[in-house]
Amino acid sequence: MNAAIFEGKGKIGVKEVADPVIQKPDDAIVRITHTCICGSDLWYYRGLTPFPEGGRIGHEPMGVVEAVGPEVTRAKVGDVVVMPFFVQDGTCPECLAGMSAACRNRMGWGGEGNDGGQGEKVRVPFANGTLFPVPDGASLDEHMMVALLPLTDVLCTGHHAAVCAEVGKGSTVAVVGDGAVGLCAVAASKRLGASRIFLVSTHEDRAAIGKQFGATDIIAARGDDAVRAIKEATDGLGVDGALECVGTPESWETAFGAVRAGGNIGAVGVPHGVAPIPVERFFWKNIGVKGGPAPAAHYIPELMPDILSGKLDVSAIFTKTVSLADIAEGYKAMDERKEIKVLVKP
Amino acid sequence: MNAAIFEGKGKIGVKEVADPVIQKPDDAIVRITHTCICGSDLWYYRGLTPFPEGGRIGHEPMGVVEAVGPEVTRAKVGDVVVMPFFVQDGTCPECLAGMSAACRNRMGWGGEGNDGGQGEKVRVPFANGTLFPVPDGASLDEHMMVALLPLTDVLCTGHHAAVCAEVGKGSTVAVVGDGAVGLCAVAASKRLGASRIFLVSTHEDRAAIGKQFGATDIIAARGDDAVRAIKEATDGLGVDGALECVGTPESWETAFGAVRAGGNIGAVGVPHGVAPIPVERFFWKNIGVKGGPAPAAHYIPELMPDILSGKLDVSAIFTKTVSLADIAEGYKAMDERKEIKVLVKP
Repeated sequence: MNAAIFEGKGKIGVKEVADPVIQKPDDAIVRITHTCICGSDLWYYRGLTPFPEGGRIGHEPMGVVEAVGPEVTRAKVGDVVVMPFFVQDGTCPECLAGMSAACRNRMGWGGEGNDGGQGEKVRVPFANGTLFPVPDGASLDEHMMVALLPLTDVLCTGHHAAVCAEVGKGSTVAVVGDGAVGLCAVAASKRLGASRIFLVSTHEDRAAIGKQFGATDIIAARGDDAVRAIKEATDGLGVDGALECVGTPESWETAFGAVRAGGNIGAVGVPHGVAPIPVERFFWKNIGVKGGPAPAAHYIPELMPDILSGKLDVSAIFTKTVSLADIAEGYKAMDERKEIKVLVKP
Repeated sequence: MNAAIFEGKGKIGVKEVADPVIQKPDDAIVRITHTCICGSDLWYYRGLTPFPEGGRIGHEPMGVVEAVGPEVTRAKVGDVVVMPFFVQDGTCPECLAGMSAACRNRMGWGGEGNDGGQGEKVRVPFANGTLFPVPDGASLDEHMMVALLPLTDVLCTGHHAAVCAEVGKGSTVAVVGDGAVGLCAVAASKRLGASRIFLVSTHEDRAAIGKQFGATDIIAARGDDAVRAIKEATDGLGVDGALECVGTPESWETAFGAVRAGGNIGAVGVPHGVAPIPVERFFWKNIGVKGGPAPAAHYIPELMPDILSGKLDVSAIFTKTVSLADIAEGYKAMDERKEIKVLVKP
């Protein structure tokens, strides 16, 4: 079988690797039908975070179960499954508390350890905690398959931003970040009942998708100007929830500026260079700060039915599709910000 | 009339001052029947925060309405009323959003501006936002009056810690701080449905009141030892909500140590010397951090009925009662930590 390989900064190759086999009784083997390239894949691609050269890459696999170990009860051969961007056991106290992202057996995909999500097949450890089968009888045309794929990461991550910011019926929301996660955060906020959703975006194409997903106001500005526009539109109050979907010092500033006293920042952008936060900064305004890696395994059972029923569809985030053989082209397009998110079909 | 006056570090006097009069159409005059000394009063008493010498003091007044301006609709002459530790208008966007502690017309009691809460009477600005009358027909014996008094500050503050930490049915909670606020946080957590409440306390008398209020486990240890005991008692997980009711670097460490991945720190102790928090510290464990001055005006309508029905009674926090003439003795007892909270009867 073939799989995508990290070959050094800016270099993605595709090589033949050994087919995966069941190694433990709770392993499964999945043939990947759809996967994608994540904004976080760009960190090693750009040489910003270390990654083993020659390592398998990708962490958003979806496909069809080909084989299961004797202890796998969660899914059966032939099931269409999505997998969160982490492997988790589903049984430890953290998983049972709903925080699968802190699972005691958490493992990443790819790297030197496990199979990567960008390849023809993966071995799935802890399959009973990691496989999320689509129910039998669901109508799975190609569009629906693509609509389910964001469950592996970005849709759950956008939803997590909204949950952490306590978005609910009637909430006012500002989404900071117009990448795939930010756009999913818009859709998640709408689904949770937000009545007004500001999307901070200076890119017309991304803003258009944001509007399609439920943004009521596009703030085509940055930094202080964006904050001023949001404040003016809310009687000087600010929003109930600011969804930080970037992770830079600038995006955190915008989130702090936009949120009202007593409101919440839901932060899912992996922090890069964000300065420690003085306690007084949030304390005196009663601003809540929460976020981190999304517990996707906790959210998929809630979100999948809405996708299957057609209520929730963020497939428009995929602006380009490549074959596995052409995956390097997908990385390049995302690195150059020509595409929002690239779908890969092995 | 007489009122308590700050006369410099460690010196509290009682002096004759002019009777208050209605100055604005939405003012009220309240004859104070019960008030108390707050842990935060000790800051100026100890010379740790500046306060005008000769200024009126106290911010937890309760009493009977003596006069109202023509625009006051919230209460009438003769009503028994409690007042939050801030004056608020009740009509600005922040107040309407439930965050009265950030009211655009927020004022403190006492100091150089308003009347202090420790005196025979107060003029109440923004009476329509600041007066909370006990409903007509309530049975108000002395015990009930004392049970209502903590609504002015510490009960709402303890409740705020629990709300910020998202305490609900079945939550596990650790309360850090065994002062009046921490003990009220125990009672509030129980009221909100927490199933297990750890109280960190090395004082037997305070721990006993904590147990009376609903603490299921007393952790008679500090710092790392306290964290270890809480972790051991929760299968290594930690608690859903850590209620930070002190505001020191040590108490923040304990809260961070005790909370589980995906849990929440509800912080109401005014921060003193707490270092800025690296974003990565809460991000990778998905720990939520929220808190600040309690929006008491938002909580009183919810909490008062439970006090009147006898379901909620934290009057045991008052371990000493003094007359206004003897208020200096009350400050001294609290400064020496001989008493948890001192009730003052003008």
